[in-house]
Amino acid sequence: MADHHLSAQSIHTVWNRTLPPALRVSPGDSLTFDTLDASDGGVARRVVAGELTAPAALDALIRADARPVRDGPRGHPLTGPVFVEGAQPGDALKIDILEVRSAAWGWTACRPDGIGLLDAVLAGEGLQPYTHFWDLRAGTHTDFLPGIRLPLAPFPGVIGVAPGADGPHPTAPPRQVGGNMDIRQLVAGATLYLPVEAPGALLSVGDLHAAQGDGELSGTGIEMAGQITLHIGLEKGAGLTTPEFVTPTHGGSSSRWHVGTGHDPDLMTAARTALRALLRRLTARGLSLEQAYVLSSACVDLKISQVVDAPNYTVSAFLPLDIFVD
Amino acid sequence: MADHHLSAQSIHTVWNRTLPPALRVSPGDSLTFDTLDASDGGVARRVVAGELTAPAALDALIRADARPVRDGPRGHPLTGPVFVEGAQPGDALKIDILEVRSAAWGWTACRPDGIGLLDAVLAGEGLQPYTHFWDLRAGTHTDFLPGIRLPLAPFPGVIGVAPGADGPHPTAPPRQVGGNMDIRQLVAGATLYLPVEAPGALLSVGDLHAAQGDGELSGTGIEMAGQITLHIGLEKGAGLTTPEFVTPTHGGSSSRWHVGTGHDPDLMTAARTALRALLRRLTARGLSLEQAYVLSSACVDLKISQVVDAPNYTVSAFLPLDIFVD
Repeated sequence: MADHHLSAQSIHTVWNRTLPPALRVSPGDSLTFDTLDASDGGVARRVVAGELTAPAALDALIRADARPVRDGPRGHPLTGPVFVEGAQPGDALKIDILEVRSAAWGWTACRPDGIGLLDAVLAGEGLQPYTHFWDLRAGTHTDFLPGIRLPLAPFPGVIGVAPGADGPHPTAPPRQVGGNMDIRQLVAGATLYLPVEAPGALLSVGDLHAAQGDGELSGTGIEMAGQITLHIGLEKGAGLTTPEFVTPTHGGSSSRWHVGTGHDPDLMTAARTALRALLRRLTARGLSLEQAYVLSSACVDLKISQVVDAPNYTVSAFLPLDIFVD
Repeated sequence: MADHHLSAQSIHTVWNRTLPPALRVSPGDSLTFDTLDASDGGVARRVVAGELTAPAALDALIRADARPVRDGPRGHPLTGPVFVEGAQPGDALKIDILEVRSAAWGWTACRPDGIGLLDAVLAGEGLQPYTHFWDLRAGTHTDFLPGIRLPLAPFPGVIGVAPGADGPHPTAPPRQVGGNMDIRQLVAGATLYLPVEAPGALLSVGDLHAAQGDGELSGTGIEMAGQITLHIGLEKGAGLTTPEFVTPTHGGSSSRWHVGTGHDPDLMTAARTALRALLRRLTARGLSLEQAYVLSSACVDLKISQVVDAPNYTVSAFLPLDIFVD
């Protein structure tokens, strides 16, 4: 029942079951991980270098947080890996998320040639690279623009164990052992079950988000460094084949929603249509296209309304109207 | 500001802008539609014919509701179409959903060769055709099995206007003018915006569901006949290209959720993996595979957690744990 702490000195940027453990723990132990943001300090360095403009109040925070460039392969900087005594292939880690602590600031970006759902479409409409900086010091909410306020609900974008197959494996795609799942309901109070494929499981965490909509539409949530505390349990012979979790939240926290819908044989195309309708509503309120896109990434939820009415399936994009507080 | 009523005598089973209007209304009017269930009374007739077994208490209800077989093309029996004076292509109907009234009973089915998300997979595990009958007379909830209780949240599975293109068009797929969208947040209190493509819009409604999860996983919600009251408004030159709505609900109404996740380049495959994990949990509680599947169709929500972490995208399937009331 020990309490452990793992600093952000223990970083790796690929999944690999051959990585040496940074720490060994026993089932029943608790661990606190310090984590870096997804850019590994890159956004902070660009502000310091004058390549990105942040609001004055955030500049000092960012400057204090700028880190030297790390050598090594590209990928999310993950804190770990943690070897769990007794964990064997076929078992499951049972991970209680006890607390997720936000940093003082975060960022959300879009670009015309990135990974976002509408990058290709919006590039044709003149979308520019854009980074929004969020002041997270209030702890419970953050203001986007005057009159637009988002609740914070921090969670780990990446949490997973080492795949059993020979590595290295990139960190970008999530897989059957978890990883970059970007599931916003993995908040404090949730319990995550991860299939173990490598002896010791080799658990790592990183890429905390202060908030995000289901979908992570422009490619980033509210990205931040931070700290997360987990309780580690072990279920022998659990037989899981994909991550599962129990959570106290479904994600919804608004009294009304404006919803765009899309209907198409391809769910991704349907999602694009649904989001496009919301961007039109947001720009009609005076937001720039870039602001509408990154705000959507931080708070719009994609739901699959139906997968059975062939040949068209339905995706609905939910914009919480309670964010408009003026 | 007239109040109209359209009985279930005014039924059509395809979308077509050449159909003669069953009723003409003006913007500002309210309408109550009587609607038939998606099987056009077929499930009730099969009970009466002894081909399906319903609980004794429901038999009499079903018997009273059994209707003669309708001639004509296959498709959802829709009540309408309603011609809205002044509605022209480029406008949008603004439809306030004032009230949705459940019937006394409903049904949810699965089969190994139907349209459900996992039909093909589960057929290999011996899935049998199965119809569950629900007693809806309590009005607020319905019991599935002892200890499993679902809240009711009735909504129209099909609501739409005539496509502008030459018809007939089948009712199964939803499209840019709405139709069989199966969006469970279109409850009383919601406002739906539909693009008008044909003069008069030609609004029709049908296929009410007493409850459903996002996804409608086994291919049916809680299917029922019923009654729905709408207020019809008109927005000139709205420029919509897909249905949008404002709703008071995001769908969530549980204090805890058990969630299966799937991670795959194809969102449909990811959804299958996520649902498969939940079925395993439900059958471990003693439900048959068929019961687990139809219960999921009635209450499990599919959410798209991320669409940006290539090559794998994430779908999460949310089972509300509050349904277990024992």
